[in-house]
Amino acid sequence: MAERLFQRMAVIGFGLIGSSLARAARAANLVGSIAACDSDDGARATIARLGLAEIVTGDPAEAVAGADLVVLATPLGAYASIAEAIAPALAPGAIVTDVGSVKGPALRDLPGLLPAGVHLVPGHPIAGTENSGPESGFAELFQDRWCILTPPAATDPAAIEKVAALWRGCGSLIEIMDGAHHDKVLAITSHLPHLIAYTIVGTAANLEDDARSEVIKFSASGFRDFTRIAASDPTMWRDVFLNNRDAVLEMLQRFSEDLTAMQRAIRRGEGETLFELFSRTREIRRRIIDARQA
Amino acid sequence: MAERLFQRMAVIGFGLIGSSLARAARAANLVGSIAACDSDDGARATIARLGLAEIVTGDPAEAVAGADLVVLATPLGAYASIAEAIAPALAPGAIVTDVGSVKGPALRDLPGLLPAGVHLVPGHPIAGTENSGPESGFAELFQDRWCILTPPAATDPAAIEKVAALWRGCGSLIEIMDGAHHDKVLAITSHLPHLIAYTIVGTAANLEDDARSEVIKFSASGFRDFTRIAASDPTMWRDVFLNNRDAVLEMLQRFSEDLTAMQRAIRRGEGETLFELFSRTREIRRRIIDARQA
Repeated sequence: MAERLFQRMAVIGFGLIGSSLARAARAANLVGSIAACDSDDGARATIARLGLAEIVTGDPAEAVAGADLVVLATPLGAYASIAEAIAPALAPGAIVTDVGSVKGPALRDLPGLLPAGVHLVPGHPIAGTENSGPESGFAELFQDRWCILTPPAATDPAAIEKVAALWRGCGSLIEIMDGAHHDKVLAITSHLPHLIAYTIVGTAANLEDDARSEVIKFSASGFRDFTRIAASDPTMWRDVFLNNRDAVLEMLQRFSEDLTAMQRAIRRGEGETLFELFSRTREIRRRIIDARQA
Repeated sequence: MAERLFQRMAVIGFGLIGSSLARAARAANLVGSIAACDSDDGARATIARLGLAEIVTGDPAEAVAGADLVVLATPLGAYASIAEAIAPALAPGAIVTDVGSVKGPALRDLPGLLPAGVHLVPGHPIAGTENSGPESGFAELFQDRWCILTPPAATDPAAIEKVAALWRGCGSLIEIMDGAHHDKVLAITSHLPHLIAYTIVGTAANLEDDARSEVIKFSASGFRDFTRIAASDPTMWRDVFLNNRDAVLEMLQRFSEDLTAMQRAIRRGEGETLFELFSRTREIRRRIIDARQA
């Protein structure tokens, strides 16, 4: 039997991503045992019922005791208090990673809260669905998807490689980049699209009652895709916007300017301007299909 | 053998929708023969190769000769010239319908261009994909999807019922409403989502070269869904915005106000405002799933 990457993986926050990682790591025989921590009673009951972990607890310190890998998979807003809670219980030499959608500002305070000798290797698997909770996870979620690692310059290369090996074992492709750069890229590919989807679904929800039921009835015409995105976990996404404020506001400003230009073209009946944009965006789609991320 | 609804259906514009209707109508044995008209040489060759119609022509007048049903399935901007071309060739008592995404202003001029004794029953199947052309159609496209008919008040009820029966035979559910009302509902469920998707994909395309390739690489995080919508047919969508200007601008104004409120909440770090909206939009998604349009 090949040696496992980690003897015990503790996953703090056992939702869609955390439970999918646990499933994938177990399926690929990458970890010896799994300790699951979740603050929600119902989630813990589900984890136990589905047999997703050897240890199921609501106490982060209990979960990380004896773990050589700790994965933070909660909303970003919980990181600081979890770090404080687990610090005394972390094993020397343990690796701490996370799966958060924001890396730069969100992780600024984390190193200072962890004891010396513990390795912090921030990560972000680019994968997900609109569903939440441990029952919504599945082992194939990360297959052929990118996982971005954003280790600070001084990080032990061996720790980075172990985290990379874990994700590769779950089917992911690895990219290493600077945390601030990650946040700018994700602001346009993920955070702004979610903000826009949430907003337009909210605009529709604010319509008068009659129109609102028709919106639902005839949603198959484009709106439906937005509602799927806008069904994502509210706490997680609140924390994304609070923690990636500058990059999101910068991309939002660019988008608003472009939208105003479209508004002007429609008002003036400038068909050429519309046609030119609509043709150019097809090319981007073609390149995504070529890159096999469609 | 049950009597067919129509002896000959002429479909002018044989793209995704036109060719899907032809396939569905033939599969359900609703029409005796099909005349396909398309202005594109390559499309006509494809139609002939796939054997999708008995008659394949680039001349609308030739297509409608002897047809008891004529379906306009071109971009809206071509309607007026097609109506002028087919008017002398239309059989007395023929029914003319369409599949356009805008109904009110787009069809204002059409009745005046058609000869007396021809019945105009405007329609709009709420179905589609981002693909274009006769090769992208399929018979199941309209299954369990709504088709909205917007006949003017004076329309012969028998003609309305025949068009409704055609769509029912293709698997659709029928709704009859006023054209102007249709255009308001579709402005929020379809036209604005497409405009926003086109715009944000354009915003990403305008980024510096490096960032642009990363946008494609990491598109699996929300952006991907927008690029799919933004790959829709440019000519068709240009004409939608030129023909439903007032309703689109009204919904765009509401959306922009809501987006500005979100921008303000992010800038000020108002997590409660974000969380409240993000929770409310989940409910809309649940109702769409309940309505089986997800």
